[in-house]
Amino acid sequence: MGLFTRDIKTMDDLFVHTLRDVYYAEKQLVKALPEMVEKSTDPQLKQAFQAHLGETKNHVIRLEQVFKMHGTEAKGVDCPAIDGIIEEAEEVTGEVEDKPVLNAALAAAAQAAEHYEISRYGTLVAWAKQLGRNDCARVLEQTLEEEKAADRKLTEIAEARLNLQAAS
Amino acid sequence: MGLFTRDIKTMDDLFVHTLRDVYYAEKQLVKALPEMVEKSTDPQLKQAFQAHLGETKNHVIRLEQVFKMHGTEAKGVDCPAIDGIIEEAEEVTGEVEDKPVLNAALAAAAQAAEHYEISRYGTLVAWAKQLGRNDCARVLEQTLEEEKAADRKLTEIAEARLNLQAAS
Repeated sequence: MGLFTRDIKTMDDLFVHTLRDVYYAEKQLVKALPEMVEKSTDPQLKQAFQAHLGETKNHVIRLEQVFKMHGTEAKGVDCPAIDGIIEEAEEVTGEVEDKPVLNAALAAAAQAAEHYEISRYGTLVAWAKQLGRNDCARVLEQTLEEEKAADRKLTEIAEARLNLQAAS
Repeated sequence: MGLFTRDIKTMDDLFVHTLRDVYYAEKQLVKALPEMVEKSTDPQLKQAFQAHLGETKNHVIRLEQVFKMHGTEAKGVDCPAIDGIIEEAEEVTGEVEDKPVLNAALAAAAQAAEHYEISRYGTLVAWAKQLGRNDCARVLEQTLEEEKAADRKLTEIAEARLNLQAAS
């Protein structure tokens, strides 16, 4: 996007821009998640991160399907939001030595990323429907539901195990 | 926080660090929201932003209460996540000329910020309870509920008005 031009002229342009934003974000998460799998020492948390890494790779493929359905080239645009969320996750988890406290910090950091995606996919689904692209909306909705489920799973693990272990 | 020291030793340290993170985030939003009020041309959206600016100022005050209850100095730490979310909001909305498309973009950008806060306050409430600080949890929970309500309100306005106007 040009610095002095205004390249988003229509709702469809805004939809494509946001698809590209989340495409970049998912790819960054595919790169970031293996380190979170590595750092986590709670077996349930590790497994949840591992499963979500698999889902995230699938989200990238789904976005490529949506680009294709829409007739637009699949490419990313910089997404300072996800860069900031990942940077913050690395900074905070880098400050923690104690393993149980680190597990609690990792789960919380992952939930910040999940919530960013929930917000973006929620918007994309609504915009796709408004644009009469129910085909795109259906694919995006599958990912939205997986992001919500991943967030609920992390809340469950944190409340049943991680927070208790970290506080004791 | 030191670059080569690991300053978060306990769950309580992690709680305080995250309080400081969201304290910084709320203050950045107090600075960013007036521009969103200014840019929005839909009267319901403008009113929602204006109301949320008032709430956000109150969230800063509530966090200061929580710091006090906890016996910790109220101060912020850099929060690259909110900086990235705000930067992205400014970038995207700067690309849009058409007023109805801009309103849809503004609402979506604000929802990304809401979701970041929902994730952080959700975590803080759970941690406060785990640490036996139900007093802090109760105050944080009030803000959590307001963030969720602000997000729902934006979804409502977007789906009833903004998306329709933007796509037509």
